[in-house]
Amino acid sequence: MDNPNDDFIDVGYHYQLTLNNIIEHAARLHPKEYIVYRGKQRETYKEVFERCKRLSNALEGLDVKEGTKVIEFEWNSHRHLEMYFAIPSMGGILHLGNPLLTPEQIAYIINHAGDEVLIVNKDFLPLIDGIKDKIKTVKHFILITDDGEIPETRLDPVYEYEDLLKKSSSEYRYPDLDENTVATMCYTTGTTGDPKGCWFTHRALSIHSIIWGGYASGYGLTPAPYGATLCIVPMFHVHGWCIPYMSTLFGIRQLMIGRTDPTIVLEMIKNERKEDPDRPITIFGVASVLRLLIYHPEIEKYRRYLGNVRYIVGGTAFPRGLAERCIELGIDPYSGWGMTETCPVMGLTLPKSHMRDWPDEKILDFKLRSGWAAPFEEQRVVDAEGRDVPRDNKTIGEIVLRSPWCTMGYYKDLKKSKDLWKDGWLHTGDLALMDEEENPLIVDRDKDVVKSGGEWISTLTLEDVLSKYPKVSEVAVIGVPHKRYEERPVSIIVPKNEFKDEMTEDELRRYLEGYVEDGKILKWWIPERFIFIDEIPKTSVGKFDKKALRPRYKDLLSNSK
Amino acid sequence: MDNPNDDFIDVGYHYQLTLNNIIEHAARLHPKEYIVYRGKQRETYKEVFERCKRLSNALEGLDVKEGTKVIEFEWNSHRHLEMYFAIPSMGGILHLGNPLLTPEQIAYIINHAGDEVLIVNKDFLPLIDGIKDKIKTVKHFILITDDGEIPETRLDPVYEYEDLLKKSSSEYRYPDLDENTVATMCYTTGTTGDPKGCWFTHRALSIHSIIWGGYASGYGLTPAPYGATLCIVPMFHVHGWCIPYMSTLFGIRQLMIGRTDPTIVLEMIKNERKEDPDRPITIFGVASVLRLLIYHPEIEKYRRYLGNVRYIVGGTAFPRGLAERCIELGIDPYSGWGMTETCPVMGLTLPKSHMRDWPDEKILDFKLRSGWAAPFEEQRVVDAEGRDVPRDNKTIGEIVLRSPWCTMGYYKDLKKSKDLWKDGWLHTGDLALMDEEENPLIVDRDKDVVKSGGEWISTLTLEDVLSKYPKVSEVAVIGVPHKRYEERPVSIIVPKNEFKDEMTEDELRRYLEGYVEDGKILKWWIPERFIFIDEIPKTSVGKFDKKALRPRYKDLLSNSK
Repeated sequence: MDNPNDDFIDVGYHYQLTLNNIIEHAARLHPKEYIVYRGKQRETYKEVFERCKRLSNALEGLDVKEGTKVIEFEWNSHRHLEMYFAIPSMGGILHLGNPLLTPEQIAYIINHAGDEVLIVNKDFLPLIDGIKDKIKTVKHFILITDDGEIPETRLDPVYEYEDLLKKSSSEYRYPDLDENTVATMCYTTGTTGDPKGCWFTHRALSIHSIIWGGYASGYGLTPAPYGATLCIVPMFHVHGWCIPYMSTLFGIRQLMIGRTDPTIVLEMIKNERKEDPDRPITIFGVASVLRLLIYHPEIEKYRRYLGNVRYIVGGTAFPRGLAERCIELGIDPYSGWGMTETCPVMGLTLPKSHMRDWPDEKILDFKLRSGWAAPFEEQRVVDAEGRDVPRDNKTIGEIVLRSPWCTMGYYKDLKKSKDLWKDGWLHTGDLALMDEEENPLIVDRDKDVVKSGGEWISTLTLEDVLSKYPKVSEVAVIGVPHKRYEERPVSIIVPKNEFKDEMTEDELRRYLEGYVEDGKILKWWIPERFIFIDEIPKTSVGKFDKKALRPRYKDLLSNSK
Repeated sequence: MDNPNDDFIDVGYHYQLTLNNIIEHAARLHPKEYIVYRGKQRETYKEVFERCKRLSNALEGLDVKEGTKVIEFEWNSHRHLEMYFAIPSMGGILHLGNPLLTPEQIAYIINHAGDEVLIVNKDFLPLIDGIKDKIKTVKHFILITDDGEIPETRLDPVYEYEDLLKKSSSEYRYPDLDENTVATMCYTTGTTGDPKGCWFTHRALSIHSIIWGGYASGYGLTPAPYGATLCIVPMFHVHGWCIPYMSTLFGIRQLMIGRTDPTIVLEMIKNERKEDPDRPITIFGVASVLRLLIYHPEIEKYRRYLGNVRYIVGGTAFPRGLAERCIELGIDPYSGWGMTETCPVMGLTLPKSHMRDWPDEKILDFKLRSGWAAPFEEQRVVDAEGRDVPRDNKTIGEIVLRSPWCTMGYYKDLKKSKDLWKDGWLHTGDLALMDEEENPLIVDRDKDVVKSGGEWISTLTLEDVLSKYPKVSEVAVIGVPHKRYEERPVSIIVPKNEFKDEMTEDELRRYLEGYVEDGKILKWWIPERFIFIDEIPKTSVGKFDKKALRPRYKDLLSNSK
């Protein structure tokens, strides 16, 4: 008898899902569409691809081969996009260096990954200069400058990016890589211990980009061909949520802001509007930057340009107060969620077909949850035994998930990898409620949990409610040790300038009691104390740094009973 | 030294691109969206998935295992969608049976594939009954009826589809298949020889659906969540262009027409409009069915429902006359192209970003070409040596291509597989011109070429021009043997009813001479003869059957010099 498998004659070309195919496609099919850098400079996809090939030739000259790791520290720019494609396409590994880590952490991740080439924007040069002696593996340094001038530096040998490109040929034939080749690495900092290295293959990044790009486009967020994306989230943080890859895949315009500056964001929107009054612009960023935008001192000047703008908040919850301010300004708010381990997007709050007739308030409730899963992704909220919690929007459980775009483990760390992937599901450590629409609401992240008397308190819900209080500018809720309840919530508040000296703990307590009556929060969730300060410390990615806050207030309740 | 590959710790779940994940996702995330069958019956995605599981249990009871081939003959229906998912998801191979093949061809493909189960709609029962004795491999027959009554039949053992489902459990856990498992087979009939079996893996179908679904949605053709698709192209023909898979992936409404009937199509649009006046409806079909729709005797009655309707013509060129009639009726016309070997979609004529300000005429020219490539697909037009022809829209070459969704060969036919995949590129046999937008125009397909005096004549261009002549209803141009030039074009014309007895060859000749002056066609392209007949024979998929026409007129020019 024949071997039935032999009957399926297989003599075709096994096309791989690799990143070079994305940029080559954009250059061939959308050669005239372009990237705008800080409103000044334009680079078409055709030019991006040509410069990718120059960069690959330059890096080949610096001994970059298949598997060579190249770390880079750069703002959101056309050059960053070039590195996103050029390094993995030649078989190298793009290590996204987060310049907001501590110097010790940066030295650690370079040596741990074994990076051989380091590319750095002049703005971060002092940082790298400062740890030069601790860096063991780097053989070549490349400096990015907008003006072409190399400042004093201890780095050696050092080259200038544009100079290297100018000297290199734009002819380069990218190899036919297997799609399971590692393309990128990003380190994530947990609550304790050293940063952990997540890694992603060409396949993971490609599938993530086509699925989420397709879903976001199909649901009108980044519609091709006339849409534009403005990625505020730094590209050094988990592939800039893959927005640069998705945008290139669909051949749509990308507005790149360089160093984050709310005024530049507003100016770029204005410039784009002048050229193209009704092009939809979709902005991706964290809530803290959104706050700076929509409470910008000159916001009224920009108000008329904000129609047909959407803002997707990720990384943190979307506080309702901010969302309402967005709507007032004409900006359409959405939430998304993900983490470094997940490439990162795992959910978006796209309204579904049957919600068409829902009232605005109900739609907004839906859009401010965390976000439902794409096809080829499963997200569940489970109890400690791994059983799905009821979809009652009340029972807290942990989000576990799987999809083709998750990291398959941590670089060189088998133990933590096994913890991450226990029982075949990626354990996020995020606690959430699930509703009937399979749209989870994360109620506490990264173990930022308050566990009071054995029960979980949702700090995100408290922050959401408090953020709506008219005198509040920023709010973070943390758990503070407490004799009787183990932990109790404490609320750290930044009042708006005009209310700086007139807010009281009592008025906030009374305000929250109104929500207790509505059943929105439980009585024992009301924070023990409300502390007024001038600024809440932020992490490297713009989230409230609760790790920094906690030690500061650890003794606050030590005399409570 | 460490093995660097071991450093990338890989303990995660390797998520596969398999079809069960598409229907499971739709059932979980879009449970309330639905399929409409012939305007009468509705089935939600939740119900589709439950019935898939019942069908899988029923088939398991008939010994269907991994690799078992199940052939089915069915119209476009909710049941057909169930088979699309249930059979491959359990590891079986869905063989799409084309009931419009000749009885001999049908017996051939069943025996050649080795199908063990045969599912057939009652409408095609006489056909299968008639070849029963020639069918060697089928062990079980399942009959689909809308009324549940099994007519007289020689098939044995025979079951009724709904009865089987009713008796089967809706609990079924689909196995974790490798995405490279074969999911479907479709046979294609060439110009000569037996039908050839194309085969597609879960991976091919999944990537095809997410890429083209994403591109079509992103470009506004099938926008989620409010869009609807109406697939006129039969689902027994190359996965219904994968529209059923793509629509399920995006959780959008699907209008299923059953047996093709232009009145039912118009009625379904009307019904949908009454419920949802502004839901975009995208129709996929060949030009000949479009003609029946837009020249429907009662079209004026339906005109007001045709806003926000798009019609994508594939399989044949989109004659300009038809496209202009579409626009007059409010229908937005697009072209697409593909072939059985390519899953099938390889191009769509989606206008690009920089075409926004193009005049309508120029956009229409673009939209009536054949269609540009998606990401992760390469299509080229090459000369006989495999070199790209200039993108001058003048030089004729053959389209070759590759992408992850092509068949990797023909079932049990190594020689033809090698011909298909010569030099790592799939050779389509289609001749085309390439333009600067990389949007090819197919000028002759399937070797339907007229080669006159050593030069190619584009019959598609001639047909396009002649179709615009106000008195012409249908037109096909064929090559007829000619002593001096080897072959000369002859035009077969079906006049519109009201002009039946008054058209002359001379008026058409004069008409074409106008296009010669405009440079649109060359003088020697003008057909030697114009033959007026009542109807042009069609192939099983609704294309003009030039193979049937050619012998009829083979001696027409035997006395020419």
